[in-house]
Amino acid sequence: MTSSASVSYVALSGGVGGAKLALGLCDVLEDPGRLTVVANTGDDFEHLGLKVCPDIDTLTYTLAGLANSETGWGRAGESGAFMEALGALGGETWFFLGDKDLAMHVERSRRLRAGESLSAVTSELRARFGVRAHIVPMSDDPVPTIVETEEGPLAFQHYFVRERCRPRVLGFRHEGAAQARPSAGFLDALAAPDLGAVIICPSNPYISIDPILAVPGVRAALTACEAPVVAISPIIGGQAVKGPTAKMMAERGVAPSAAAIAEHYAGLIDGFVLDEADRDAAAVIAATGVVVEVTATMMTARADKQALARAVLAFAERIGAAG
Amino acid sequence: MTSSASVSYVALSGGVGGAKLALGLCDVLEDPGRLTVVANTGDDFEHLGLKVCPDIDTLTYTLAGLANSETGWGRAGESGAFMEALGALGGETWFFLGDKDLAMHVERSRRLRAGESLSAVTSELRARFGVRAHIVPMSDDPVPTIVETEEGPLAFQHYFVRERCRPRVLGFRHEGAAQARPSAGFLDALAAPDLGAVIICPSNPYISIDPILAVPGVRAALTACEAPVVAISPIIGGQAVKGPTAKMMAERGVAPSAAAIAEHYAGLIDGFVLDEADRDAAAVIAATGVVVEVTATMMTARADKQALARAVLAFAERIGAAG
Repeated sequence: MTSSASVSYVALSGGVGGAKLALGLCDVLEDPGRLTVVANTGDDFEHLGLKVCPDIDTLTYTLAGLANSETGWGRAGESGAFMEALGALGGETWFFLGDKDLAMHVERSRRLRAGESLSAVTSELRARFGVRAHIVPMSDDPVPTIVETEEGPLAFQHYFVRERCRPRVLGFRHEGAAQARPSAGFLDALAAPDLGAVIICPSNPYISIDPILAVPGVRAALTACEAPVVAISPIIGGQAVKGPTAKMMAERGVAPSAAAIAEHYAGLIDGFVLDEADRDAAAVIAATGVVVEVTATMMTARADKQALARAVLAFAERIGAAG
Repeated sequence: MTSSASVSYVALSGGVGGAKLALGLCDVLEDPGRLTVVANTGDDFEHLGLKVCPDIDTLTYTLAGLANSETGWGRAGESGAFMEALGALGGETWFFLGDKDLAMHVERSRRLRAGESLSAVTSELRARFGVRAHIVPMSDDPVPTIVETEEGPLAFQHYFVRERCRPRVLGFRHEGAAQARPSAGFLDALAAPDLGAVIICPSNPYISIDPILAVPGVRAALTACEAPVVAISPIIGGQAVKGPTAKMMAERGVAPSAAAIAEHYAGLIDGFVLDEADRDAAAVIAATGVVVEVTATMMTARADKQALARAVLAFAERIGAAG
């Protein structure tokens, strides 16, 4: 056991990559109930009249052991009878919702309309799935990510799924961020006196982590918190493990590298974890005052996720003890 | 061919029994596009945040050849992955919504929220299913049936599905009827100069037909219309073919019989069709001034539906010619 059960942790996460590390953390923590995973909700959207929260869902399914590891989204052993019937009715089918997955969206939408907060619904549903870690939305207020592209602004899922990240990205807007407040669960977890670390998962910085940081008060809370803030690079050897991170960086004029990720989080992080493939960048990052850890960060097997989780927890403990 | 393609027809219908006759009518009419089936929407309800219209759905699926003939509701070859997943999430599962069927409710709900009328959505969806007959809701305004029972008032589906028609019925209330208007499609069909007949399908008079008649203006329009109004008895030999019609009649102190059905429609109908099993009642009904037709009304096979449809059309034509 890497760390004491009396220490609590906060992880900021997007979808697939973040969920993998969150699963590793749940596996290696003595009490996964001490982990609060803060989900990006910038991807959330209203679709077919239903509230869909892709990152909350990926986290929930992954931590419940129900995720479809091949697609990276949705549930394993999923069927598509609904979608096929919807297509026959002329409905929108560009965003696949499996028959089982649909239960999540219908039940969530029903509860939200009945006046429950996204935090309450998310907590209740992850508990139903037997997930012990807390999953909290970054905010109960909507903060939809708008992707500014050469073809004009696009709602996130229109860019991401419908257009398959094809249009060249000019920037991102976090609509409604100015009026949003961090969720109570997020703030409470950051304020916990036994907080051991804030872990920025290896998620896309622009579309998974920045939306969380865009909520007023979050940056200040992270800066104020005594526990070390540690980020793990989603870029390995100049490539994104999954998704458009590298493409987006290049389009924004940033050479995709672990060092560029560390720079993106400059002023916010105390520690940075990068892959052995990027060992050369360690010195440059360390020169900025950030403590650097080099380890294997590719999470393919369950054991990889656990090993990275252990490495991150030990690293954070080391920084905490030093600071 | 029983009737000329230049004649149009209106059928008032609930679910299963009415849909069977509507299917027979579609089969025997030269142009099913001349038939307007007016669906009871008193059964409609909001469930899981979705607008569910059981009679519209049964009519649509039946006329599209997709109905589940064993259950009498839903689609044939249906799967239940959504419902099972919803149950695991603690959602309400007393009203079964199959995976394919769900597409209807999701797409309808989405369109209604976007501001389309129930008439427009219903018309578009039945066209998507290749149904040539028009299916129109009795009203675009909600007129939910409330069942007054010994255990208190119950929303219709709570009485019908959740309680399986168990509580003793004291009466019915058509909530919002006073403020409702008949749908434009319904009124237009009744006002068609070539209207050949209004057919009251063998549906439950209390919960399928009375809600339609409760919409202000409908009784007057039926009385004013020159075409004969013809009802078919849903009671055969003192028994309801399906559903709680006989039970409800008994609970309301009415002996379940074809004659009682005819009396229920007194003042409204010009003709009444009853089964050979109830031949004895013909004279009593005829004595009230209603023209009576005795024929086989049990619709098991497709040929039964077509035969009854032919008999009804010929009967209406005879009354029309005489009147």
